[in-house]
Amino acid sequence: MILTVTLNAALDTTYDVHELVPHASNRVTTVRQRAGGKGVNVASVLARMGHPVIATGCVGGRTGADIRADLDARGVAHRFVDGAPDSRRTVTVVSAAHRDATVLNEPGPEVPARVWASLVAGLAELVREQRAGVVVLSGSLPRGLPADAYSRLVATAHAHGARVVVDAEGAALRDAVTAGPEVIKPNRYELLSATGCTDVAAAVTALRALGARDVVVSDGAEGVLLFPSGGRPLRARLREPLSGNPTGAGDAMVAALAVGLEAGDDWTVTGARAVAWSAAAVGQPVAGEIDPDDATCLQARVQMEETDDAGQA
Amino acid sequence: MILTVTLNAALDTTYDVHELVPHASNRVTTVRQRAGGKGVNVASVLARMGHPVIATGCVGGRTGADIRADLDARGVAHRFVDGAPDSRRTVTVVSAAHRDATVLNEPGPEVPARVWASLVAGLAELVREQRAGVVVLSGSLPRGLPADAYSRLVATAHAHGARVVVDAEGAALRDAVTAGPEVIKPNRYELLSATGCTDVAAAVTALRALGARDVVVSDGAEGVLLFPSGGRPLRARLREPLSGNPTGAGDAMVAALAVGLEAGDDWTVTGARAVAWSAAAVGQPVAGEIDPDDATCLQARVQMEETDDAGQA
Repeated sequence: MILTVTLNAALDTTYDVHELVPHASNRVTTVRQRAGGKGVNVASVLARMGHPVIATGCVGGRTGADIRADLDARGVAHRFVDGAPDSRRTVTVVSAAHRDATVLNEPGPEVPARVWASLVAGLAELVREQRAGVVVLSGSLPRGLPADAYSRLVATAHAHGARVVVDAEGAALRDAVTAGPEVIKPNRYELLSATGCTDVAAAVTALRALGARDVVVSDGAEGVLLFPSGGRPLRARLREPLSGNPTGAGDAMVAALAVGLEAGDDWTVTGARAVAWSAAAVGQPVAGEIDPDDATCLQARVQMEETDDAGQA
Repeated sequence: MILTVTLNAALDTTYDVHELVPHASNRVTTVRQRAGGKGVNVASVLARMGHPVIATGCVGGRTGADIRADLDARGVAHRFVDGAPDSRRTVTVVSAAHRDATVLNEPGPEVPARVWASLVAGLAELVREQRAGVVVLSGSLPRGLPADAYSRLVATAHAHGARVVVDAEGAALRDAVTAGPEVIKPNRYELLSATGCTDVAAAVTALRALGARDVVVSDGAEGVLLFPSGGRPLRARLREPLSGNPTGAGDAMVAALAVGLEAGDDWTVTGARAVAWSAAAVGQPVAGEIDPDDATCLQARVQMEETDDAGQA
């Protein structure tokens, strides 16, 4: 069983327009709504891949009810803590003329201290009750949470016997690693900006000095760089890169890393799965979706190579 | 008592951003929500001016519940018919850098036939029960309604003793006038485009041929052109035009026209009130708001002049 924690879950709304004209009135042709937030997307991918998973975190208000209802409709199990103010929305305006998207991210509610306390206690209970092997912590922190929220959640999971994957950036990532999560998955930009380093090897070393263990760096069409804490760096990538919608590719990769961590798979297996699931997500129109057949096919097309510490073959 | 009918009520969401960057991810700094739709704004203005009013129409789902809750919070009485799918939202992105707004209008739900039947029956009952003097029909028709929805609502109001103001455009306006509403208020663009005419006098004549009676044409900073069915055209305007946010100015004007129609005021009085309320709304940041003191002050600054049929002094 894998648990995903989404502290700033969202209701993702997609508006289709012919062409987004700034500073004017735009007619929306279709409206779609879907539960989102990084951890929710990770849970959704795991559920689609047939892996036992429960999404937790906090939601609130009518938007929180919509998030729950969408997960119910999609068959994704969830146990969110309630009591926060209305959950945030994101609005993605997809322009048919420009074939691209403009995203508006609401800041999200300020989470009250009692909700945070319930969330920590609820995670501890859920890990014990479900005998969860892995806890995934993904995404940004909402306002109102303590600055050490992620390290406290890592410690809570560890205290109850689960291992932890963290997908965060900036101060939240720097805080999370101090509690020694088994795996972190920044992308290249997040890795460098969280550390202030200009090369990948130095950034990995800097995060290791803070407490990081295995570091997995997603690298867009170049696949993924794996820095196992006790081994040689590896790069895994598709023989022929795919093009598509990168939204949600990182979440599918985190789902694959969580599966590998739970099963105790070798990094060559986990790396191939991470690249394959991420690439399969690129073929989907929305985050959190994956076609299991795509994932299986793509996994056979991943190549692994040893690399130096800077990620060069 | 005035009743306003809003067939396509909305929850208006305003997002403040520093600068809207198309084709990128934008951080929203503040989120505001407010019940909207033209008839709802008319009711809101009347309530702020201390005039007895009830907002009706149809709303649905969680968004409909949010619309009702906002009207409750603002002290605007309402009696909406429920049972439609989730009401629409509009998103207005206000860019601090550009000092302007980008609007995204959801199409709204398709209204089921049984909801439409309840709405017509409910309007008849409400007119009788409240002894309503005036019914205001404002805004676009949602999908699923018959093409003659507005003329049927005009006839329903007339059958139960109320007079009618219509603020509509295009086919809905052409249909509405066939039932002989006492007042219609297109703006100049709507008047010309509904008739295919290139001058105001010809367009008024064309709508009269279909059944229109008094025609009031809002004309932006130029004030308003009044075409009473039995008298000379008049123009009413502020001596010194105001600048500000024109959103909602038309709705405030319709509120003033409804008050004049109910009281049986002379067109010089009603015209001055229409210009003053409209101008007072321009000073407000959101549609449906008005400061009664502004409205009173501005009314003394309206000048009336006779005009020829083309609206020239």
